[in-house]
Amino acid sequence: MADPTSEPTEAAFLSDFAELSAIGATERGGVHREAATHADGLGREWLRGWFAEHGLRCRVDAVGNMYGCAEPVPGAPYVLVGSHLDSQPTSGRFDGAYGVLAGAYAAASVAAAPPEAARCNVAAVNWFNEEGSRFSPSLMGSSVFVGKRTAEEVLETVGADGVTVREALRAIGFDGQDSPPRPASFAEIHIEQGRTLVDEGFDIGVVTRNWAAYKYAVTVEGEQAHTGATHMRYRRDALVGASQVVLAVRAVADEFGGAVLGSVGQLTVEPNSPVVVPSRVRLAADLRSLDVDLLEQAHQSLLARIAEIVEAGEVGVGVQGATLRPSLPYHEAGVALAGAVADDLGLRWRTLPTMAGHDSVNLRDLVPTVMLFVPSVNGISHNENEYTTDDQMITGLRMLTATTRRMVAGALETVSVP
Amino acid sequence: MADPTSEPTEAAFLSDFAELSAIGATERGGVHREAATHADGLGREWLRGWFAEHGLRCRVDAVGNMYGCAEPVPGAPYVLVGSHLDSQPTSGRFDGAYGVLAGAYAAASVAAAPPEAARCNVAAVNWFNEEGSRFSPSLMGSSVFVGKRTAEEVLETVGADGVTVREALRAIGFDGQDSPPRPASFAEIHIEQGRTLVDEGFDIGVVTRNWAAYKYAVTVEGEQAHTGATHMRYRRDALVGASQVVLAVRAVADEFGGAVLGSVGQLTVEPNSPVVVPSRVRLAADLRSLDVDLLEQAHQSLLARIAEIVEAGEVGVGVQGATLRPSLPYHEAGVALAGAVADDLGLRWRTLPTMAGHDSVNLRDLVPTVMLFVPSVNGISHNENEYTTDDQMITGLRMLTATTRRMVAGALETVSVP
Repeated sequence: MADPTSEPTEAAFLSDFAELSAIGATERGGVHREAATHADGLGREWLRGWFAEHGLRCRVDAVGNMYGCAEPVPGAPYVLVGSHLDSQPTSGRFDGAYGVLAGAYAAASVAAAPPEAARCNVAAVNWFNEEGSRFSPSLMGSSVFVGKRTAEEVLETVGADGVTVREALRAIGFDGQDSPPRPASFAEIHIEQGRTLVDEGFDIGVVTRNWAAYKYAVTVEGEQAHTGATHMRYRRDALVGASQVVLAVRAVADEFGGAVLGSVGQLTVEPNSPVVVPSRVRLAADLRSLDVDLLEQAHQSLLARIAEIVEAGEVGVGVQGATLRPSLPYHEAGVALAGAVADDLGLRWRTLPTMAGHDSVNLRDLVPTVMLFVPSVNGISHNENEYTTDDQMITGLRMLTATTRRMVAGALETVSVP
Repeated sequence: MADPTSEPTEAAFLSDFAELSAIGATERGGVHREAATHADGLGREWLRGWFAEHGLRCRVDAVGNMYGCAEPVPGAPYVLVGSHLDSQPTSGRFDGAYGVLAGAYAAASVAAAPPEAARCNVAAVNWFNEEGSRFSPSLMGSSVFVGKRTAEEVLETVGADGVTVREALRAIGFDGQDSPPRPASFAEIHIEQGRTLVDEGFDIGVVTRNWAAYKYAVTVEGEQAHTGATHMRYRRDALVGASQVVLAVRAVADEFGGAVLGSVGQLTVEPNSPVVVPSRVRLAADLRSLDVDLLEQAHQSLLARIAEIVEAGEVGVGVQGATLRPSLPYHEAGVALAGAVADDLGLRWRTLPTMAGHDSVNLRDLVPTVMLFVPSVNGISHNENEYTTDDQMITGLRMLTATTRRMVAGALETVSVP
């Protein structure tokens, strides 16, 4: 049992990160810890134990968000600091988990030795289902926290295995009833998931804006038939149409030469038997760009290409969801604070946009929010080979802890949010 | 309880077919009765009951093939007559099941009133897993019966749900221990699954040859990555490569303008999450043609197109299985017998090849085999809208029964098999 009044050490951080990484570990050094699975449950139990050992009171809200709370200023709002423990399938051990553990260490350090004239309380946080792989869409827990979605609609969401979020959270014992802490501000640290910091030799990235994204749910409709007994002229093959859509998404990305990303990550064939012409294919596509005008052009290009596929007459294509995540700035005062902290610590830092979505994109709309990056070796992410060095992690932890301390002292208290 | 010594009536056939079609029925008039599922087990229980009611002794062999045996000539070999009860997912109620029930009626009729000087015994048969959707490859039960595969390798086959054939057969109580009857010859009746008979106004098709087929198991390898944070130039997207393979198969079929069929029926994406660039895609493809030379040209064209996809450098493509089902003739004496029977009955008949594979393609290599078709309305198959009229079914039953009677009387006894 650690002494809850002393600051945890950096050596302990690396040891704890190794322990956490062993939960849901894959043979190739990654983790497979999708939201509200057994492995996620074990990771959460581990975190709850860590909170208790370090004097943070655990609260679990209705959608499984976990908070490790310290209240040196009774009644004051909380600086929240954290990320998410859930992972993509066969994914890396740093994405999200690093930010949760760094947030826990930052909260415990600040709670153990609060700044003089602390204005806020502090809570580590583990947002539920950031990844959106088992239960779609992503950013579930933080979306409920900021009021963009209701707890009820999230709890009724059905995963690919037919289980609802409500049932899955209950099964792992994280269907909570606690009210969430009242937020003053939010800080998140995350691996960059790109090569900018590594290629240019920076220790820390301070996020100024997120890339915009269009996300699509597409259904391609054909006609079920026998692959061996149906002449080609009578076929309406949904998989042929879906393959054309996949290549159309790629062609749109190519059209904008790197300024637009596009892919299809998920594709499901019905009935998916070797000798049956597919009747229906469902797929999830996305297009992303920092430049909203380019993204809109890419969106129109994709719709035009899909219209051409439909006009060819073999399949029907329905684009059910085309939801835009806008590109918006993070708070200037938060960027300035992070830059000042990094300078104080003597770190090499730069501002940059985030290509991926994060819980901070939600929190930013509610409270002043600081988003920090540490380098990703080779920029690899959502892959078991994802890697950030121990030194890079420790540097990020120092950065996050100092930033959190300044926020608890009231550094962002006067910042207004749209 | 029917009188086992009287011939079953045609009215009873239609009523029994409706009963059988209700097992595993879908809302849209089809069936979903994949091999060794609960629904297949119920269909098998129903057939076992039918055998008992009609004086046929049920035998179940090690791979779940069911035989309903009558032995008017003790010690003599058996004329086998039947097809398969298992279906594709959300498929039609005629494919296979019609042939099993017609075979049961033919066997019971002949057993109730055997021809004078019968040379053979008679057994209705339900071959295990003709479709190959839950457990691949297809034609499992008949492949073991004719000695092309061992019972052990079939029983160890693992389905997509992780269950083995052995476990699945045990779960439905059809892991039999009976030795199969010694065969003299085989007759199968099936829906055409094409439009030839319907378009040209024939009652019966007599199959002279099967289309040749190449079947492929293809794996496309990429690199798992974040769809939102990985620049296009760093991507190795397995689904882009797989989509190119799907369209290559279609392009090969188009290249031969109808004389070659080609499709991808099954495609599975890993890890299949909306925001992850796919790392691996597995797919099952086939190419088919009546003309073996054309098929070989198509096969070479596909391999060349796949080589081009690999040369482009984004993905790796492995073609693990490229197995050829050759195009071979059915026995001339069997075709002649069926033609004579059809003439005797005053039916409009023609010879034709079978595009789809059937258990008779296996049996043909072991014993003299007759393969008959009844019309398929609009040629629709492997689809819930598959349809054959009551009159067409009854005409086919008369044809099958008369043919079986001639075979039991020794009509094909002197035919030699390669």
